[in-house]
Amino acid sequence: MVEVHRVKQTMDEIGKIGSTDRGMKRLAFSREEKQATDYFTAQCEAAGLSVRMDAAGNVIARRQGTCPELPAIGIGSHLDTVYEGGKYDGTIGVLAALEIVRDLNDRHIQTKHPIDIFAFACEESARFGFSQIGSKALAGLIKQKDIASLTDKEGRTIQSVFAERGLDFSRLEEARLPEHALAAFMEMHIEQGPILDGKNLPIGVVNGIAAPTRFTICVKGHAAHSGSTPMNQRQDALIGAAEITIELEKEARREMEHGTVATVGDIEIAPGAMNVVPGETHLKVDIRSISRASKDRVVQFLDTFLDHLRAARHLHIDCTLLSDEPPVRMDAGVIQTFENACREKKIGFIRIPSGAGHDTMNMAALCPVGMIFVPSTGGISHHPDEHTDLPQIITGIEVLEAAVLDRAVVDISKKAGTGNAQ
Amino acid sequence: MVEVHRVKQTMDEIGKIGSTDRGMKRLAFSREEKQATDYFTAQCEAAGLSVRMDAAGNVIARRQGTCPELPAIGIGSHLDTVYEGGKYDGTIGVLAALEIVRDLNDRHIQTKHPIDIFAFACEESARFGFSQIGSKALAGLIKQKDIASLTDKEGRTIQSVFAERGLDFSRLEEARLPEHALAAFMEMHIEQGPILDGKNLPIGVVNGIAAPTRFTICVKGHAAHSGSTPMNQRQDALIGAAEITIELEKEARREMEHGTVATVGDIEIAPGAMNVVPGETHLKVDIRSISRASKDRVVQFLDTFLDHLRAARHLHIDCTLLSDEPPVRMDAGVIQTFENACREKKIGFIRIPSGAGHDTMNMAALCPVGMIFVPSTGGISHHPDEHTDLPQIITGIEVLEAAVLDRAVVDISKKAGTGNAQ
Repeated sequence: MVEVHRVKQTMDEIGKIGSTDRGMKRLAFSREEKQATDYFTAQCEAAGLSVRMDAAGNVIARRQGTCPELPAIGIGSHLDTVYEGGKYDGTIGVLAALEIVRDLNDRHIQTKHPIDIFAFACEESARFGFSQIGSKALAGLIKQKDIASLTDKEGRTIQSVFAERGLDFSRLEEARLPEHALAAFMEMHIEQGPILDGKNLPIGVVNGIAAPTRFTICVKGHAAHSGSTPMNQRQDALIGAAEITIELEKEARREMEHGTVATVGDIEIAPGAMNVVPGETHLKVDIRSISRASKDRVVQFLDTFLDHLRAARHLHIDCTLLSDEPPVRMDAGVIQTFENACREKKIGFIRIPSGAGHDTMNMAALCPVGMIFVPSTGGISHHPDEHTDLPQIITGIEVLEAAVLDRAVVDISKKAGTGNAQ
Repeated sequence: MVEVHRVKQTMDEIGKIGSTDRGMKRLAFSREEKQATDYFTAQCEAAGLSVRMDAAGNVIARRQGTCPELPAIGIGSHLDTVYEGGKYDGTIGVLAALEIVRDLNDRHIQTKHPIDIFAFACEESARFGFSQIGSKALAGLIKQKDIASLTDKEGRTIQSVFAERGLDFSRLEEARLPEHALAAFMEMHIEQGPILDGKNLPIGVVNGIAAPTRFTICVKGHAAHSGSTPMNQRQDALIGAAEITIELEKEARREMEHGTVATVGDIEIAPGAMNVVPGETHLKVDIRSISRASKDRVVQFLDTFLDHLRAARHLHIDCTLLSDEPPVRMDAGVIQTFENACREKKIGFIRIPSGAGHDTMNMAALCPVGMIFVPSTGGISHHPDEHTDLPQIITGIEVLEAAVLDRAVVDISKKAGTGNAQ
């Protein structure tokens, strides 16, 4: 049985590392993140796993299978946090994996496939403005040169940050896993949204990850005196920005059935004064969907609307594409595995899209993947108030464990305990 | 005759004072503004005027009348500028007054009423965030205590700034002019808007000054993950701000016939990130009209719309009134005087509202007032590109001179020249 007390104790211990009076601060490759991975490594070793850190800083701990030549079943998540983050995002996925191997040990269950636990390096973009460096390196999705020019907010290069962590950046690409190293990868994560909490459901079986398409939009009008410029003689850049914001929301609402979202998350204005008609605004736009077609429709709508706005408001508008990642579908078989586990355990679930990006979407380049979500209270994440009830975490671990046992294949001949794999 | 060459030379000389490679910088009470008022004082004295600086830093130069006991006719404007300002705003109104007395001297015209030229102190709010200190003090509209806590952007108190300028802040209220000191006050100013330039008309006879009603609006929603928060579960503070911006524009357009304008001039956002639904926005709102009733309708509309928005979007909205100055109507008689002057000289004009505030609106507390505008090329002001063609300035001076002569009453018995007052 998954041990509630043990999970709580491990959560509490790791939750102290990087804890501040404004939430968690365990930035990627930082001293605090090293403390956390050291702690995790020690716990894995205590559980009899063999642990290694790869060239990208990922920690990979193996519970050997009875057929070592079989590809491993991967589980895990990340231990780094954003600035002023919470204790659950990433961390519970790593600790769930740890608890599962501890429980299998307790129950003397052996699996044919090895089980690999991953604590991915640098999942959050908080430090370098670039996310999932560890899992992208593992999956061969980034080359050294793609990220060689990154610096953190203090201006430190990724090379020097790697070096301080005992890593050689020039060897980054060695982190790439061989083909067929994994038979499947599964991640448990907090939802970071309000759906499960709102519906009072314990498990979300992720059907796809909606990687973002992002733009910056610069709207240029004409700065003018707010008192002496008649309404019909203005080229107000803020009005343009406001129309984009509202029309984009309307369009995303029309695409809601596809789990599509569109957000203007930031706006800058110039000159920005009480008595001046705004001359220039800059917007940051983030559009996501697990449906490529739906996301494309929103992007197309935006494009058409900007043309309309240029003509109707005499505004000069530049729209720059920053990134355009395709949505990643979860493997139908892994979804089935999760849903079977829920049904057998009579645990309520729904299929749910992931609007946030996760390491799992990179692992999809290596093997069939799947994810489950547990509820985020109030939908809050990346915030000190981030919370998931302990019983909800336990439920998530139980579902993940069942899926692991299904995929890793219990070796009945070697089974020494009295329990049942289910 | 108004001397084109002399006007140009005076413009050029004063335009050098505080000139930078990013426009004019002659902040109120600064070294540069002192240089400009010293220059102006010397020019007035050379023209035979008696000059004094009052307790608020206003420079007042008198051309005595043949009936010194009569109230004076006041003309003038201000010599201070904003940061990165232009050479025309304020300055041409002071120089027009100087040119008029020079011309009257040349033509040996004497008037029964004295003529007082004003170079008002601190018209622009650029230095202290508080405008028209000089004319408000003259008109008794501010007390010491109202502005005693002002500091400039460098943190210097108004008391210390006054002291450096040789002024004693504790004596500010002594600047107040006695009742019946003035029979009328008239100001020539650049339009700071696009109307005259657009219609290719040389003169705007101002019918009213649309002092602003100003608000800050704080919209609070709920910061959330941009990927994992469905569109129908958001409380997006930027959407709220965008709706306010657009609805306010629509309403002001409905009130356009009253010269009404409404502007959201600034927006701040928190947290302001690509991947976060905005949790909080702050807007600066400026509403102006020369019609109190029209402005009141827009304010009422805003109030009602915010209520709607609170309910429809589940947003928490605080709307704080910063200032609510009533519009100031120009005196019908002075308007008539200006329009008669234009008609006699066959100079095209229209009646026009002033969306910007001016010293004249304070002088209205003392005597009948009026203003004329000359065109601002492209409607640009408070900017290095601010421009009015020299012939347009000359035309303005001629209309103002005709109005002064009408109001100050030419003393035929003392007239020594050969010209005619008209």
